[in-house]
Amino acid sequence: MDRYQPPPGLSVADWLDTFVPHLSIDCVIFGFHQSDLKLLLLKWSGASVWVLPGGFVRHADSVDAAARRVLQARTGLRSVHLCPFHVFGELDRREAFGRRLFQIHGADVPRNHWVFRRVVSLGYYALVDFEKVTPTPDAWSDSCVWCPLDAHPPLAFDHERIVSRAHESLRAAFDQPGTGANLLPERFTMRDLQRLHEAILGRRFDRRNFQKRMVERGGLECLDERRRGGAHRAPRLYRFSQTAS
Amino acid sequence: MDRYQPPPGLSVADWLDTFVPHLSIDCVIFGFHQSDLKLLLLKWSGASVWVLPGGFVRHADSVDAAARRVLQARTGLRSVHLCPFHVFGELDRREAFGRRLFQIHGADVPRNHWVFRRVVSLGYYALVDFEKVTPTPDAWSDSCVWCPLDAHPPLAFDHERIVSRAHESLRAAFDQPGTGANLLPERFTMRDLQRLHEAILGRRFDRRNFQKRMVERGGLECLDERRRGGAHRAPRLYRFSQTAS
Repeated sequence: MDRYQPPPGLSVADWLDTFVPHLSIDCVIFGFHQSDLKLLLLKWSGASVWVLPGGFVRHADSVDAAARRVLQARTGLRSVHLCPFHVFGELDRREAFGRRLFQIHGADVPRNHWVFRRVVSLGYYALVDFEKVTPTPDAWSDSCVWCPLDAHPPLAFDHERIVSRAHESLRAAFDQPGTGANLLPERFTMRDLQRLHEAILGRRFDRRNFQKRMVERGGLECLDERRRGGAHRAPRLYRFSQTAS
Repeated sequence: MDRYQPPPGLSVADWLDTFVPHLSIDCVIFGFHQSDLKLLLLKWSGASVWVLPGGFVRHADSVDAAARRVLQARTGLRSVHLCPFHVFGELDRREAFGRRLFQIHGADVPRNHWVFRRVVSLGYYALVDFEKVTPTPDAWSDSCVWCPLDAHPPLAFDHERIVSRAHESLRAAFDQPGTGANLLPERFTMRDLQRLHEAILGRRFDRRNFQKRMVERGGLECLDERRRGGAHRAPRLYRFSQTAS
């Protein structure tokens, strides 16, 4: 991909003026694939720097709209639930960020511009269906790829911390029945559900205890059907109750 | 209280330059008093406008430090847990805010200043010990008072919505054993604990069911002591387990 170019007719500085200064969005996009939790990451063009998908907030956009714009641009997905989970507002968390990015791309921005100073970032996470995503690099990156959550390349700035906090929030949300319903087929086996929980929560469960706990906490409907095929006895199918999503 | 004056040697515009533009803090400060949940509110000088305690974020402060500064200035409290719960980043949520405030106080700020434009607010809540607070108005207000959560004056801008979201988050946090420990004496009766839960969650519980649920969820230690005095049989005392806070 070529060097970054602002939209036609705008200098980089004028383009930056279309955004709320000192404010950014970082999106932690989790994907569930083959019993594994993955993370969508970008690699900057011309540097081995890995970062989270992100962007600035247009003066004309709500912060939620800005986050949806980032998610849609990087994945092609619309109407996915994006959860705001934390504000990263420490000093010095990324002051060097702007400078390095604009140096690499040779963009012409005055040295005292806000983009080289402090930026407060709003963290959002989403848990998406891996199969439905078309990973798309942004103007600063040459690749956008899924990496295993537990074996991804080191991330720049405080992005490692942003991922940890997002994973914490995702795990906490998983106590609610119906969370992750978008990642399973409409009718699923107890084993499908267990694999999803194991991937999100990062630990193994005993099959019987898991089944007992899921049935007790409610929100699941046991169907009068079994899945066919496979070497073993056909497993029973479940779905989430209508009220649980 | 007199009209607002910026710190000596600074114009209002220069004073505003010490803050990150377009970013503010709103603090929802809940107090527990006589079985009731109260809210700390400010009334603007020279207008019957009620608002939440808030402020801007200094360039030199982390956002958490800015929130602590607001809490401390309005209550006198240090080292109280402040919980960031939501970002209010809709368009038009308070554009008229700055204009009206500065008009009332006759402050001289250019009309195109960011303070008259969009501001994204970071919401924090705290649950504090009513008895330990010294309510203190800010430079724009003539009073700072506790109001009942369920019968407070109407709030300006989107502050009503900010309070609702904070109360929702507070209720959700109350599922964790030990939450609210700072609002009870070290040793308390089951009735004290029940009153606290009723105030926070806004509903009544059956005495026996409440006791059963509290004992089952753990984190409580039943002491070999009873509270003396009072007309009824001396009630048993409890404390939170060391690991639960």
